[in-house]
Amino acid sequence: MPTNATTRPGRPPAVVLLSGGLDSATALACCLRDGLEAHALAIDYGQRHRRELDAARDVAVAAGARSFRVVTLDLRAVGGSALTDSIDVPKSDAGAPVDAGIPVTYVPARNLTFLSIALGLAEVLGARAIYLGVNAVDYSGYPDCRPEFIAAFEQVARLATKAAVEGDPVEVRAPLIDLTKADIIRLGASLGVDYSLTHSCYDPDDSGRACGRCDSCRLRAAGFRDAGVPDPTRYAPGARA
Amino acid sequence: MPTNATTRPGRPPAVVLLSGGLDSATALACCLRDGLEAHALAIDYGQRHRRELDAARDVAVAAGARSFRVVTLDLRAVGGSALTDSIDVPKSDAGAPVDAGIPVTYVPARNLTFLSIALGLAEVLGARAIYLGVNAVDYSGYPDCRPEFIAAFEQVARLATKAAVEGDPVEVRAPLIDLTKADIIRLGASLGVDYSLTHSCYDPDDSGRACGRCDSCRLRAAGFRDAGVPDPTRYAPGARA
Repeated sequence: MPTNATTRPGRPPAVVLLSGGLDSATALACCLRDGLEAHALAIDYGQRHRRELDAARDVAVAAGARSFRVVTLDLRAVGGSALTDSIDVPKSDAGAPVDAGIPVTYVPARNLTFLSIALGLAEVLGARAIYLGVNAVDYSGYPDCRPEFIAAFEQVARLATKAAVEGDPVEVRAPLIDLTKADIIRLGASLGVDYSLTHSCYDPDDSGRACGRCDSCRLRAAGFRDAGVPDPTRYAPGARA
Repeated sequence: MPTNATTRPGRPPAVVLLSGGLDSATALACCLRDGLEAHALAIDYGQRHRRELDAARDVAVAAGARSFRVVTLDLRAVGGSALTDSIDVPKSDAGAPVDAGIPVTYVPARNLTFLSIALGLAEVLGARAIYLGVNAVDYSGYPDCRPEFIAAFEQVARLATKAAVEGDPVEVRAPLIDLTKADIIRLGASLGVDYSLTHSCYDPDDSGRACGRCDSCRLRAAGFRDAGVPDPTRYAPGARA
């Protein structure tokens, strides 16, 4: 294993994709449990709430990640607002939004793009593992949360970088892929994850407190209930947690 | 083939990755030759010379691309300057550059990352093809310029998006992959590519004129010579073209 300025002898580095949510915080804990040196990576794609990136940083710091990075990926030109880009589109009629229904925060081919960026960081760090908090139970409708997708990514990753081609392939670890939300919370609680730092709500108040009503809040609250773990989420006054 | 606001009936849309260089301009011409509606995509990753993005736009406009988009991917946090990010790294000693030798414009896992973003645009547009100007002859040392890499990307792409999983896979076309630089220039010339708009030089002067001395200029000039095609490059005064 190559070493560099950020690698302590004896603990191989790994990249962890962090979103600020509960799942990726648990994936980070799994990385540390596995004896690796965690390098957290968050992607700033214009999240609706900056709170998510703050949460990702807080989670990385609290868990003892070796580093925390934010890579900016501005997909506004893809999401339907090529018009507002500083470089004009060539045809007058091509400036119309592709589909006005696509929100600017939608990330098409999301896990593939995020994993590709993570693979780049892995190459720079000499890391052989990427941890990803995807889950096939709650997100069964998302093709890029399935084990087949992960395996195919590992295959393309083996061919994408010089290090991999030379026999240093990168493994993608998705330790939560078969777990329910309650299983994930139980696992994370056993590993000491501070879930009070994570953020799931789609509609937080100005202080970052959860609404308790959106789909994400409901799934999260039910997970804590089913896991028998106290829910540390800060809910807004009047929220039905 | 699904249609949307930017699709003219009868001409299926395709995404073309444009860098502003000679190869991708030729790939764009191949896309149009193949009867597709070209949607050009450039990635702003902090190129050393903004001239490259200007060239990409000029090439797209001149060729008659249906749209031109720039997606910003700011990898400074990966390339070694996590320090300068607005979000602090968690440990005081982790702020040191990962490797001071990695320039900020280096894009690790470059073709994989760019193709992932292109796949996202293809999904948004309902496009089934992505054109890529990679070339295995001049870039034989780059694993992600080889046919095996392209095939593996198509495989992961088949599993990455809902449209693909439902039977609408995206094909990656690399029409230059087996061509020499002279072959590419001959092909492009036969398709009417205006190479005067493309930019290859690593060290242009303030007016964007080529130095004639860097590796990229030499490869390009030799290509025109070998192809027997007049070299339209604007060289700086005193450049040895």
